[in-house]
Amino acid sequence: MRGSILYEPRNIRFEEREAPKIVNPTDAIIRNSATCVCGSDLWPYRGIEPLAQPTPMGHEYCGIVEEVGSAVKSIKPGQFVIGSFFASDNTCATCQIGYQSSCLQREPVYGAQAPLLRVPLADGTLVATPDVPAQGLIPSLLTLSDVMGTGWFAADAANVKPGSTVVVVGDGAVGLLAVLSAKQMGAKRIIAMSRHSSRQKLARDFGATEIVTERGDEGVTRIKELTNGIGADSVLECVGTQQSMKQAINSARPGGYISYVGMPHGVTLNGEQLFFSHVHLHGGPAPVRRFLPKLIDLVWSKTIDPGKVFDLVLPIDQVAEGYRAMDERQAIKTLLQP
Amino acid sequence: MRGSILYEPRNIRFEEREAPKIVNPTDAIIRNSATCVCGSDLWPYRGIEPLAQPTPMGHEYCGIVEEVGSAVKSIKPGQFVIGSFFASDNTCATCQIGYQSSCLQREPVYGAQAPLLRVPLADGTLVATPDVPAQGLIPSLLTLSDVMGTGWFAADAANVKPGSTVVVVGDGAVGLLAVLSAKQMGAKRIIAMSRHSSRQKLARDFGATEIVTERGDEGVTRIKELTNGIGADSVLECVGTQQSMKQAINSARPGGYISYVGMPHGVTLNGEQLFFSHVHLHGGPAPVRRFLPKLIDLVWSKTIDPGKVFDLVLPIDQVAEGYRAMDERQAIKTLLQP
Repeated sequence: MRGSILYEPRNIRFEEREAPKIVNPTDAIIRNSATCVCGSDLWPYRGIEPLAQPTPMGHEYCGIVEEVGSAVKSIKPGQFVIGSFFASDNTCATCQIGYQSSCLQREPVYGAQAPLLRVPLADGTLVATPDVPAQGLIPSLLTLSDVMGTGWFAADAANVKPGSTVVVVGDGAVGLLAVLSAKQMGAKRIIAMSRHSSRQKLARDFGATEIVTERGDEGVTRIKELTNGIGADSVLECVGTQQSMKQAINSARPGGYISYVGMPHGVTLNGEQLFFSHVHLHGGPAPVRRFLPKLIDLVWSKTIDPGKVFDLVLPIDQVAEGYRAMDERQAIKTLLQP
Repeated sequence: MRGSILYEPRNIRFEEREAPKIVNPTDAIIRNSATCVCGSDLWPYRGIEPLAQPTPMGHEYCGIVEEVGSAVKSIKPGQFVIGSFFASDNTCATCQIGYQSSCLQREPVYGAQAPLLRVPLADGTLVATPDVPAQGLIPSLLTLSDVMGTGWFAADAANVKPGSTVVVVGDGAVGLLAVLSAKQMGAKRIIAMSRHSSRQKLARDFGATEIVTERGDEGVTRIKELTNGIGADSVLECVGTQQSMKQAINSARPGGYISYVGMPHGVTLNGEQLFFSHVHLHGGPAPVRRFLPKLIDLVWSKTIDPGKVFDLVLPIDQVAEGYRAMDERQAIKTLLQP
C-alpha cells in the first residue's frame, strides 16, 4: 500500500509503506472513501512543530469498514463510518461527560492519507451512517472527522446561543465551519475576520453577517466599533497563535466567552490581563465523538454542506501538491481521493 | 478624621486625613459600622504590589448613609447599606449582564478603613438592607462587600451545581467562604486544601467534607486519588500565585471548571498545557453587586454566617496590628471597629 509520509519540512511523499492490520482486538480497518489535509498538518510541514522521524500523515477519514478485531461488537464490515482523530472508548468517566478527546484510553489516529487505515477502539470511536452514502455526500461527511467537528466545538465552547453576537478569528477551514456552526446555533450576528475574498465569500455563504479585514489592535478596534464599544458575546479563536489569541481576548465583552480549538503554538497568557478581561476561556482538542451523531444527521438531511470548504480535489498520489497549495493559501482545504 | 494610610511595605498608620465629602452629585457618604482588612491589602503591605505614594487603605464597608449627592435617587440618608469595592452604575451594558466590576463607569472605592467613606455612583453601587441590622449581623453583612461576594463568585464562576465535586485551593478568608458558597449551591463533596488546623476547622464548619494538607504536585496526586483518577468538577482558585493556579488546573477533570478570583501576581499560563487540560477557566474581580441582594437575604434570614471568618476584632486605631496578624497568618481576617 502507498501512503503519505512527511520526511522533513516541505518534503512529503506518497510511497510504499506497510498496509495497516488489526493489532488489538478492539481495532478496525477502514477502506477510506476520502481523506484530506488538515490545517494542523501544516505545523510539522512548515517545520514549526518538530518531527522526530519520517511520519505517516493524516487523521481525517471516512469509509467502509473492511475488517474488525475479535472484540469489536457494534461496528460491522461493510458499514460506512466516520471517526475522530482521537480514538476513544466512549465509556470512561471522561467520555461520559462528553470529553472523548481526553478519553482515559485515548489513542491518536494517524496515517489516514492512504487507502487503508487502522482505527483503535473501533466501537467507541466510529459512528456508522444510516446507509452507504451517495458520492455527493462524502466530502461533507469527511469534514465531520475533524474540521467540522472542531468548528462546531468552537461555537459550543464559546457558548453561542440564539441571538448571540459572534466573532470568528481565523478564516481557515475551521474558522469557516465555525461560522457555519454559529449560524446553526442561532447566532444573530457573525463577524468573520478575513482578508481573502474567496474565504470572505464562503464565510458569507455559511452565515457570516459582517466581514472585518483589519487584524491585531486595528481588528479589535473595529470589533468594538461594531459592538457598541463592549465587544462580542462569543469569540471563536481558530488559529492558535499569540496574536490571534490576544485579538480574541480583546474582542470579547466582559463576561464573554472565548473558545480556542487549534493547538496553541508559542502562546502564553498573562494572568493579570486575563483576570481583568473577565472572559470565559475554554478549548482543547475538539471532542468530535460527542458531536458525530448530530452532525451526521445534519449532513444526511442536507441541512448543512460543510464539504464546501474543499476547494481543491486531488488524487491521493498528488498529496504533495495538496500540502503546497494549502501552505501557500491557494487552497482552503484539499480533499484527497484514494 | 483619622484613617489608615500605607506609607511603605509594613508601615501602615492610622492618622489624620481629610474627611471625605461629596465630589460628584452621584456620590454618597457612609458612616462605617465596620470595616476590615482584605487579603488583597497584603500585596502592597508586603511590597509585592508597588506603591506609588502613601495610600488610604480599605475597600470593604457597610454602614449608615450620612449624606447623598443631588443626583442620588434611590439611596437615602439613614439607610444601612453595603456596596462593592468597585462602584458601578448598574445600568450599562456590562452591568446588565452581571459584570458590574467591569462597569463602563467603574471606579474603585478606597479609603474604607476610616469612620467615613465616599462611595461613587451610589444608586448603582449600594444596596440597602431591609432595616438597620442588629449588631450581631454586622460582621456577616460586612463580608458581603468583598470577601463573601468573591467566594460566591468563585463557586458561581466554577459552575458549582448540586452534586458537584469541588476543590478549593487556598484557606484564606475567600477560600473559606468559597467553601460556604459551594455548600449553599449544593456541592456533594467539598475538598478544602489547608494545612492550618484552625482554618481546617472553619472549612469543616462551612461545609468542607474532606481536607487535603498536601500542596503542589503532591496535592494534585491526592486530589486525583480522591476523584477516581479523574479530577474535580470544579476547582476554586482563591490565592493568585503561579503555584496555586497550576495546582488548580491540574486538579480539575477534563471538561471541568476553574475559577480564579484573587488578582494573579506573576501568573502566566502556557497555552498548550491549558489546551490539553481541557478545562473551562473564568475569573476576574468578583461582580459583587450581582450577588448582593441574594446574599443579604441569606444573611438576614441567618441561613449563612460568613462573619465567622473574623477571628480578630480590633478598634480601628489598631489597624497596624490587624495587618500584622494577617500577614503572619495568626489571624484569618481582621474586623476593624470605627
